[in-house]
Amino acid sequence: MKHIAILGYGTIGSGVAAVLRVNAKQIAARAGEEIVVSKVLDLREFPGDPVQEILVHDYQEIVADESIDIVVETMGGVHPAFEFVSQALSQGRSVCSSNKELVASKGAELLKIAKEHNCNFFFEASVGGGIPIIRPLSTCLTADDIDEVSGILNGTTNFILTKMDQEGADYAETLKEAQKLGYAELHPEADVEGFDACRKIAILLSLVTGKTVNYEQIPTIGITEITAEDFQYAKFFGASIKLIANSFKVDDQFYAIVAPMLVPAEHPLHAVNDVFNGIFVHGNVLDNAMFYGRGAGKLPTASAVVADVIEAAKLGHQYASYGWSEEAYEIGNPLIVRRRFLVRIAEESAEIDEKIKEVFGKVMHIHYLKGEGSVFLTEPICEGDLPDMVAQVGTLISAIRVLD
Amino acid sequence: MKHIAILGYGTIGSGVAAVLRVNAKQIAARAGEEIVVSKVLDLREFPGDPVQEILVHDYQEIVADESIDIVVETMGGVHPAFEFVSQALSQGRSVCSSNKELVASKGAELLKIAKEHNCNFFFEASVGGGIPIIRPLSTCLTADDIDEVSGILNGTTNFILTKMDQEGADYAETLKEAQKLGYAELHPEADVEGFDACRKIAILLSLVTGKTVNYEQIPTIGITEITAEDFQYAKFFGASIKLIANSFKVDDQFYAIVAPMLVPAEHPLHAVNDVFNGIFVHGNVLDNAMFYGRGAGKLPTASAVVADVIEAAKLGHQYASYGWSEEAYEIGNPLIVRRRFLVRIAEESAEIDEKIKEVFGKVMHIHYLKGEGSVFLTEPICEGDLPDMVAQVGTLISAIRVLD
Repeated sequence: MKHIAILGYGTIGSGVAAVLRVNAKQIAARAGEEIVVSKVLDLREFPGDPVQEILVHDYQEIVADESIDIVVETMGGVHPAFEFVSQALSQGRSVCSSNKELVASKGAELLKIAKEHNCNFFFEASVGGGIPIIRPLSTCLTADDIDEVSGILNGTTNFILTKMDQEGADYAETLKEAQKLGYAELHPEADVEGFDACRKIAILLSLVTGKTVNYEQIPTIGITEITAEDFQYAKFFGASIKLIANSFKVDDQFYAIVAPMLVPAEHPLHAVNDVFNGIFVHGNVLDNAMFYGRGAGKLPTASAVVADVIEAAKLGHQYASYGWSEEAYEIGNPLIVRRRFLVRIAEESAEIDEKIKEVFGKVMHIHYLKGEGSVFLTEPICEGDLPDMVAQVGTLISAIRVLD
Repeated sequence: MKHIAILGYGTIGSGVAAVLRVNAKQIAARAGEEIVVSKVLDLREFPGDPVQEILVHDYQEIVADESIDIVVETMGGVHPAFEFVSQALSQGRSVCSSNKELVASKGAELLKIAKEHNCNFFFEASVGGGIPIIRPLSTCLTADDIDEVSGILNGTTNFILTKMDQEGADYAETLKEAQKLGYAELHPEADVEGFDACRKIAILLSLVTGKTVNYEQIPTIGITEITAEDFQYAKFFGASIKLIANSFKVDDQFYAIVAPMLVPAEHPLHAVNDVFNGIFVHGNVLDNAMFYGRGAGKLPTASAVVADVIEAAKLGHQYASYGWSEEAYEIGNPLIVRRRFLVRIAEESAEIDEKIKEVFGKVMHIHYLKGEGSVFLTEPICEGDLPDMVAQVGTLISAIRVLD
């Protein structure tokens, strides 16, 4: 029998307890032994909930309980999660975490501690909720030179953008509806400003490069400026708009950005709608692959945490290497990235039309909606050149990147 | 340095050699040491190919070469692959195979031999080509009670059906085009009759149940009877037709079938087109997940084999359990499965219309194309009841299952 402690009895932590209870039989069969929650850490009380009997308020009680084999960390935030997790690993206890902030900022450091103490730090649930992506990247896509990882990594923004696309609705009203339905928080900044997706792509890119990507270096643009009109233009070009966490390699240098992007109908991520997440991977021999599923939610996320617990139980004191070191990976200068843009400027006229062709060269389509200015899809141009080029032809209303 | 032998220098075997050469640097970094092909077994000669220098025609030369650590089996067929692989495992050599016939019929037995000799039998490439699905099922979706695994598991048929859907073309001419392009073989029975997909779903269902599913018990219907008209009717109901390897659980009993099915636009497999494969999984806590990518082809399949080689190198003599035993799993009687059908009968008239409603109850849509008989979508009915029910209303032209 393996004894586990859960740190944080919020949505995910209570989901982990529920999954261990509901699927106890299968889980015991796969882990090779029963898995029992013997302590739960939370500052709150939960009167009436059976957890109350195993609830502790002081982490030191878990440290002192020698029966604990595996620790589940579902508290969120970097502190005190980092201190608790590193102490558990130092005791030779494997830790399974769903905490993207912790993994993005301390992942390599915690893996190092785990290695030193012959145990494991697993974090499948930190990216893509229930979607298996961390372990497949580390154990199944290892023969490839991976040159792109792009994902729809945030369910809240994908729900909002899908609604806007399907109903022609505006951002503000759709956000309100998402908040009513519980898909967006009252303070939705972490989601709608792209911060959540940014931490997740930093984790994936760290695993791909084997070094540590600082998420603060990744340009991050949210969805708050996207309008109903933008979706109309996107549709004209057979595309939708999604918040894409995009990383790709050119000449052995990775670049990364989080931004709303035009996703053409042919792209596998185009069909990823509502609260679902999708992670697209391109390798030099694998070609295209995609992983799809519920990127958030109590039970899907808990499913990934518990699968990590089973893996930790099976591996015991054998460290499973993720090949992720603390060495910093410097992502490339985003201004030299070349990509297509959907540009909208305030002006419209035959002269402007000529001017656009003169400055931008071959423009793939020009689409006039009278009174709405000019809208055009460029050929690939340098991100850093765009402001000057636009200034030569008119007044920028919006420029949306294209995921090619 | 790890030394490997490749059994069979056909498409996949030579792909494995190519991937090990092209991505040597990354592979060495991830495996922790260089991986070198030191012998290749094939009955043929390859004059001019550097493989000629390490080519052997007798497996015993590989058995006797004590430097070999890992064996790659890409011969196909059950014999003599089974004898070679079991001998290698008995020598404590891990084996990585892309051979679905071998895995479907001998997988559990080979895993047992691997376990007894502290080595591994890996077969990620046997299902879904480059798509990671075997290891994710065994290491990432373990917390779930999985109640459905359905896949588009054959690229040839998916290419043909996608063409028929997009171009309104007939089966025979599309098959010819696929043969010309090299996407279908001259003797395409294994693909178009569904045999290939059948073996693959048997492997996946064996992993899910932990027992051995006999692929010969899975009803298997190919795509040769699908017509251009069927696609028109499918489109009327917002669906496409795809060859689906479908397995699902009702009341703790798994059922399985391979058949062309109507796939509604909302289903994640609907967007899996051309030669791509997709595997849809539903778990009681995970909800929906899908894995997408190239299900065949030299390099994508070799990518999966080489990732297995890297995993085998990392694990050394530690056996990684897939929890798959030789005990037989009896799949349920297919005749009691309830599902919707798209039925076409030869007759059409107002009386037939009434009769259909009388026999089938609520029919979701009735669609008359003058002179083409009656076409209707049923509510879920028992597969075994369908022939009698149809006989009561007219002469069956076709009945296509719906993937719900």
